[in-house]
Amino acid sequence: MGHPRAVPLDPSPAPPAVVLLSGGLDSTTVAAIAGREGYAVHALSFDYGQRHRAELDAARRIARELDVAAHRVVAIDLAAFGGSALTSDLEVPKDREPTKMADDIPITYVPARNTVFLSFALAWAEVLGSTDIFIGVNALDYSGYPDCRPEFIAAFEQLANLATRAGVAGSRLQIHAPLQHLTKAEIATTAIELGIDPSLTVSCYDADDTGAACGHCDACILRRDGFDAAGIADPTRYRSDS
Amino acid sequence: MGHPRAVPLDPSPAPPAVVLLSGGLDSTTVAAIAGREGYAVHALSFDYGQRHRAELDAARRIARELDVAAHRVVAIDLAAFGGSALTSDLEVPKDREPTKMADDIPITYVPARNTVFLSFALAWAEVLGSTDIFIGVNALDYSGYPDCRPEFIAAFEQLANLATRAGVAGSRLQIHAPLQHLTKAEIATTAIELGIDPSLTVSCYDADDTGAACGHCDACILRRDGFDAAGIADPTRYRSDS
Repeated sequence: MGHPRAVPLDPSPAPPAVVLLSGGLDSTTVAAIAGREGYAVHALSFDYGQRHRAELDAARRIARELDVAAHRVVAIDLAAFGGSALTSDLEVPKDREPTKMADDIPITYVPARNTVFLSFALAWAEVLGSTDIFIGVNALDYSGYPDCRPEFIAAFEQLANLATRAGVAGSRLQIHAPLQHLTKAEIATTAIELGIDPSLTVSCYDADDTGAACGHCDACILRRDGFDAAGIADPTRYRSDS
Repeated sequence: MGHPRAVPLDPSPAPPAVVLLSGGLDSTTVAAIAGREGYAVHALSFDYGQRHRAELDAARRIARELDVAAHRVVAIDLAAFGGSALTSDLEVPKDREPTKMADDIPITYVPARNTVFLSFALAWAEVLGSTDIFIGVNALDYSGYPDCRPEFIAAFEQLANLATRAGVAGSRLQIHAPLQHLTKAEIATTAIELGIDPSLTVSCYDADDTGAACGHCDACILRRDGFDAAGIADPTRYRSDS
């Protein structure tokens, strides 16, 4: 990494926040936002049986690049339950129209994924004495996942305050979802403003081991449309067969 | 297992339910209740870095004994976050008065444990097409854990209905907590009525590898007091040093 750090974080008196970091553009932008807001970013990624490892490689690179206070990769076994193209041998759907994506819940939906991820974030926050969790969900270009909706995030925040010592002691635990009401174009613009190098991030549901994108899954289509609408060139590498 | 099965479950047209099964008396009783209510019990246990393996051995024995439809043991890494005597090198407190246990949240509390466990149960329920999750929390003899309270369970049920396809499709997902308002004595009585052999279950926070109990931790004290109050002999084996 020869170039300067994208988002320098102030080190010492910063309150800790747990940030879910997948290695995609959205969660990377959220991590940079949390840093800019003065939190000591504790990035949390999951090895959950996703088909491609490129996402986790990207998360590790981004955590280094953002100079986070800590980064944990927790192994969980969501694939044991099956049921998603992201964790099993089912085909990732290709070349769907964005207007169609929100019509039903796609096969790339991993059951209860954000509930599980936020639960682990809550566990770490509790041990850290943190009252702030950040997640990169997005309600507009949300690709049809029920656990990306604002009412889901609000319900988790309510749960978190009942589930924990912090809640019992009267602290107020907050789930921050700063991208919730942004379009993909606004997210791309925000990422660039925060100094993020988009080539570090991997959005594709079907990337190869080097992180090269398929160009045809929902995530690739939403990302490309977002950068196009923002008028920003996306340095995403596509696979030679795409 | 030479003796007859304790609770025969009706096999085929039963709707699936996911039941959190720790291997203790409470969750075993809940699994038997779910079976009696006509559900096909899908038992879910966690290898979460607990100090003793006896609990998981007990869960496996009980799943066989109850002839459940399926049993999964999912490995999760809660110990990575530290913070509890049940997953780290901290001392399990001994010989506390039951009246003192509820005064504060004890060091045996595992951060966000029930939130994490219920999240995985929700993932499996969703894959199974199940709308029923059972958990053995208990609000009376609850040993001070915030995530055993009725308001926590109600909040998780609300979350579950926002988080999932079932919720989106209008099905009503239910979190059943049939022991919520029972005393330990009532739970012991119910367990015996359902034909459970209590010697199969391990409640102790500090059991040795053979499942022998310490006799002095909160869980041992609550269990012993419960059986005493119910007038039932508890066949728990205690360690020779206890």
